[in-house]
Amino acid sequence: MSLKLYFAPGACSFVPHSLLEAAGAAFEPLMVKLHKGEQNEAPFRSVNVRGQVPVLVDGDEVITQILAIVQYLDAKFPEQQFLPRETLARTRVLETLAWMNNTVHPTFTHVFMPHKFAGTPETQAELKTFNAKVYAGYLGEIETMARAAAGRGQPWLGGEHFGPLDAYALTLLRWGGFAQIDPTRHEALWAHVQKVAQQPGVARAIERERLQLNLFKAA
Amino acid sequence: MSLKLYFAPGACSFVPHSLLEAAGAAFEPLMVKLHKGEQNEAPFRSVNVRGQVPVLVDGDEVITQILAIVQYLDAKFPEQQFLPRETLARTRVLETLAWMNNTVHPTFTHVFMPHKFAGTPETQAELKTFNAKVYAGYLGEIETMARAAAGRGQPWLGGEHFGPLDAYALTLLRWGGFAQIDPTRHEALWAHVQKVAQQPGVARAIERERLQLNLFKAA
Ligand SMILES: N[C@@H](CCC(=O)N[C@@H](CS)C(=O)NCC(=O)O)C(=O)O
Ligand SMILES: N[C@@H](CCC(=O)N[C@@H](CS)C(=O)NCC(=O)O)C(=O)O
Repeated sequence: MSLKLYFAPGACSFVPHSLLEAAGAAFEPLMVKLHKGEQNEAPFRSVNVRGQVPVLVDGDEVITQILAIVQYLDAKFPEQQFLPRETLARTRVLETLAWMNNTVHPTFTHVFMPHKFAGTPETQAELKTFNAKVYAGYLGEIETMARAAAGRGQPWLGGEHFGPLDAYALTLLRWGGFAQIDPTRHEALWAHVQKVAQQPGVARAIERERLQLNLFKAA
Repeated sequence: MSLKLYFAPGACSFVPHSLLEAAGAAFEPLMVKLHKGEQNEAPFRSVNVRGQVPVLVDGDEVITQILAIVQYLDAKFPEQQFLPRETLARTRVLETLAWMNNTVHPTFTHVFMPHKFAGTPETQAELKTFNAKVYAGYLGEIETMARAAAGRGQPWLGGEHFGPLDAYALTLLRWGGFAQIDPTRHEALWAHVQKVAQQPGVARAIERERLQLNLFKAA
């Protein structure tokens, strides 16, 4: 078995994890326990010196970064059509994927891992509250996308095929629970994410990671 | 003329700006004065509701996000080979491009626009100092890449052709000057960036934006 995926339960590695499962790929899932700091220990650092999941290993090749991994998997499993073939449609999906990855995701990192951005407890506390609000606004934008797709009768966020936007949307909405955002209030997105979770491949990834979709607890 | 680029002098829009010039494309450059807040005024918000450059307009299509714009331009000007054709080589370039875009670039945003992440002046001040240090480390990583490429006799960061990594590296090293990082201390990267700046297309973009490469002032 030459494909391996380093992942952490509930982390952004869910995106390639669910694509691999959706493709029915044979791969070795390798769990990295972020809460135990395994990403900073020698065995994992020797795989990815930056200490982050996801990492896809294909034979001798070690590939990091969701944007790169997703496009690599799209080329490897073309029959899945994870990304549209046609340039403009593909550009639209990459645009939203890049935004999720460079804007929405890092905003949540300020809530979940504020020590990445500042040293003192006071500053970390302000980063959490400030960015939880910003994050809520971004989930609102994804809700609008989900509503628009549903309105057009389009089954997946990227078009006619399940793909990275669907898996990322699930992850980002789920994270919202940690930021005191009730996912069920984003009705179209919540409905979409539940449909995504029921896809056979995605369901296997959810089972392996033992994910609960709704993490919100009323304060 | 159907291509337009919204850009701001010295901003990350330099990446598509220099690709367009390198391709010899006919396009209308439209300047957005970020220091005057034009990105938040109605005319520009009607183009990009998120209030950011770059924005590429091709006929009726409005495209945002560097990752998406770069791949769109690669498809539109295939003879430039802005990105390698072969999957693995392409994946490697996308991996570094994504990292520059989702990690290095946002780290600098904490130094330059800390109000995007926090409200109080104390927190903003700590964000600046903390992230300037993190940023210096990332420029060190890009220096290592430039040294490795030079060592292999490889002319550009992405391979045999000038491309987005070269333009982004120039931008990121230049920004370092604002974070009290002397660019000339990163010898291989500084040499590379000066070579990039002399490419005819890049030189035209630099001239239009009136950029000075070394912004460092000893404290
Ligand atoms: N830019 C990276 C981000 C990866 C990332 O943020 N990974 C997180 C989990 S969601 C991680 O491994 N964090 C552990 C740490 O930073 O200590 C990508 O797109 O793959
Ligand atoms: N994720 C965006 C980032 C764009 C971005 O950061 N643009 C900055 C200039 S470097 C901007 O327009 N800032 C103005 C503002 O945010 O007010 C991309 O990749 O295109």
